[in-house]
Amino acid sequence: MDIISSSQNDKVKYLNKLYRSRNRRKEGVFILEGKRLIEAALAGGADFKQIFLTPAFFKAAENDNLLAALKLKAEFIYLETSLLKETASTVNPQGILAVVEESVFKGDDFYRQADRILLLDRIQDPGNMGTMIRTAVAAGFDGIIALKGSVDIYNQKVIRATMGGIFSIAIRQKISQAEFLAEIKNEAADYEVLAADIEAAEYHFEHQYQKKLILMIGNEANGLEKKLLKAATSKIKIPLAGEIESLNAAVAASVISFEILSQQLQEEI
Amino acid sequence: MDIISSSQNDKVKYLNKLYRSRNRRKEGVFILEGKRLIEAALAGGADFKQIFLTPAFFKAAENDNLLAALKLKAEFIYLETSLLKETASTVNPQGILAVVEESVFKGDDFYRQADRILLLDRIQDPGNMGTMIRTAVAAGFDGIIALKGSVDIYNQKVIRATMGGIFSIAIRQKISQAEFLAEIKNEAADYEVLAADIEAAEYHFEHQYQKKLILMIGNEANGLEKKLLKAATSKIKIPLAGEIESLNAAVAASVISFEILSQQLQEEI
Repeated sequence: MDIISSSQNDKVKYLNKLYRSRNRRKEGVFILEGKRLIEAALAGGADFKQIFLTPAFFKAAENDNLLAALKLKAEFIYLETSLLKETASTVNPQGILAVVEESVFKGDDFYRQADRILLLDRIQDPGNMGTMIRTAVAAGFDGIIALKGSVDIYNQKVIRATMGGIFSIAIRQKISQAEFLAEIKNEAADYEVLAADIEAAEYHFEHQYQKKLILMIGNEANGLEKKLLKAATSKIKIPLAGEIESLNAAVAASVISFEILSQQLQEEI
Repeated sequence: MDIISSSQNDKVKYLNKLYRSRNRRKEGVFILEGKRLIEAALAGGADFKQIFLTPAFFKAAENDNLLAALKLKAEFIYLETSLLKETASTVNPQGILAVVEESVFKGDDFYRQADRILLLDRIQDPGNMGTMIRTAVAAGFDGIIALKGSVDIYNQKVIRATMGGIFSIAIRQKISQAEFLAEIKNEAADYEVLAADIEAAEYHFEHQYQKKLILMIGNEANGLEKKLLKAATSKIKIPLAGEIESLNAAVAASVISFEILSQQLQEEI
């Protein structure tokens, strides 16, 4: 077992590079920190490229099952505990990091896989972004589109806030607005395109949702960009009973997503 | 106009003390930073004790209306810009801070004012706490009870995340679990006491909510404490359609609060 102790080692330098969004993007990969996230990724069928781990993690009997499964999938690289800690962004990476391939969907493939899609327009806060992905999965959505200008979904804070949800939903990100607007006229022309809009005539609980739909949620401070709002095929409003001007973006997404799921379940009951 | 430049000045030392939760509690006050929050507090009928401001803020014509209203309510204390910035917790306190009296409700008064109450059990994250208060106000709730062990509601991060909502809802905090459990047997015996519970028989959208209710939301990692769960008069579950074990606490609170509001509006339509 070769144990790397120097941050000047080429494999460690490569790993360090991947902590920058631009480099991850170029390589088409992202990083997972800690046993729990790696187990969730394994269950979600992720493609592993490298596993960075400490000798102590390798030796602990409680990790045997996980390691046996990972051995079949990726190269193991052993780092000294202090070096792994220094490299990771979490305070306690629990002795293991993984480099995983980003799933890449072309427009067509994506729409073939996803019927109920959440579109995120320039969402800035990693916690908000992660919570929305977690909530979308819980509410039975099967696709996420994050437009250019949104925080990187493969940022560690976003991944952690999804609570493993990132591995059970199809994801496309860094899509331009123009590209998305073209798609909803072509390959996604049969989707209902929904926007929350304070001027809408219908409340969110009055609307009859279509089976195939794209729910668009806008930037925390400014809402949806005008052209997106204009492209909506349906507009709904969430009632505001108290002296509050607007809802948090993740709250608005939650309220609508669970209304959609509730309607579906009520029909099935 | 006396302008204070030393952090050793007694009034500045007093202000500094109030940045610690324990001291705020003892004095029964909290701090607001920035024009926008102070305007919201004024509109909400807050009791101001001191206003700390810079000479530049005092002189700017666009602040005349706000200052005229505040003059009638509290002592003005002028600080040099650098001293005010150094004291405040926000990067840009915009030249004004206010010390405001905490609203104190005894059990009886509170229940006379509030019909629809959100109870928060050991909520840890200030952003979550603030978002839940903002959402509760938006959904027409009129009371908040935060049990002991929750983050201080008058923490700057919580106040900011409420987006002004903190001023339009009755708030009681640092209530012990025993005190609350006694209240729902006595002065609050006519309230429906609701808990979200994965084992519940009814979905949140099937339940008929009472007019007077207390919705209990538990700690982010551990949920509601056992005795609270046992004290619930109704239990509901939010459906989880995807591979996610639980919802974020603020998301769960949002989904249920807006279901309650939606039912009310549907009856009224």
